Amino acid sequence: MKRVTLKAIGTVHNAVREGRQGWGQVTSEIELLPEHTERLDGIEDYSHIQVIFYLDRVTRRERGMKKFHPLDREDLPLMGALATRSQRRPNPIGLTTVRLLERKGNTLLVTGLDALDGTPVLDIKPYSPGHDLPPRGYRARLGEKAGRGT
Amino acid sequence: MKRVTLKAIGTVHNAVREGRQGWGQVTSEIELLPEHTERLDGIEDYSHIQVIFYLDRVTRRERGMKKFHPLDREDLPLMGALATRSQRRPNPIGLTTVRLLERKGNTLLVTGLDALDGTPVLDIKPYSPGHDLPPRGYRARLGEKAGRGT
Repeated sequence: MKRVTLKAIGTVHNAVREGRQGWGQVTSEIELLPEHTERLDGIEDYSHIQVIFYLDRVTRRERGMKKFHPLDREDLPLMGALATRSQRRPNPIGLTTVRLLERKGNTLLVTGLDALDGTPVLDIKPYSPGHDLPPRGYRARLGEKAGRGT
Repeated sequence: MKRVTLKAIGTVHNAVREGRQGWGQVTSEIELLPEHTERLDGIEDYSHIQVIFYLDRVTRRERGMKKFHPLDREDLPLMGALATRSQRRPNPIGLTTVRLLERKGNTLLVTGLDALDGTPVLDIKPYSPGHDLPPRGYRARLGEKAGRGT
């Protein structure tokens, strides 16, 4: 199967050094490489962006896990890794929609990004309901909220 | 800056061989490698999933483009690549929320995926409003819809 090599376009800076719950109030600065500065032109017109990042603290063992209890709570049903938002995924890619507070040159100030300090950023996209909002009502299982961020 | 190597977890199969507009009605089958089958357990309880894929037909020239007119329409303002959903990005990663019609073993049947036949898939996530929905109303510039899919 195809191998894909990507080069991080920037880095997350914040005060978070280890995993936590409740990222909503965390403010982060995303610093892009200067060569990408111009690529941000126009993004300040959006209130929200999607950040795709590489969960570089995930271990090989975690990447190999196929099923687990969300939040390690045994009262929750076993779930396949790809049916959760857990970081225990074969390709540890993080994806979160965050609020864009400010753009200054090659840096973006955002809130709600659930990424540790130093996390490499792979891509930034403006939030677009056409791509990102389910066209009709969605349904989700009970375990979902509990599964978030495990 | 950090290099990241990922291994595709599966492939898109559909009837689309070249770029087009109007993907909403396109049905695709996402076939995962058999080693990932178990990782899908539980995903059938979601109506929508997010697909992260690698835009493998994007050229080096396109990856290098910093600003352009969405849809190549010169009446639309020049936009930075990361302020659009264009495939012309330094890391050509595609991201779309799609409707999940059916899961059968290692395959997912979906509608609305804007990926060509043969596209490598990097990750699958259940759609989760906590991660994916802006917490409050969002705003977007006029060019946004026109910029979609360019």
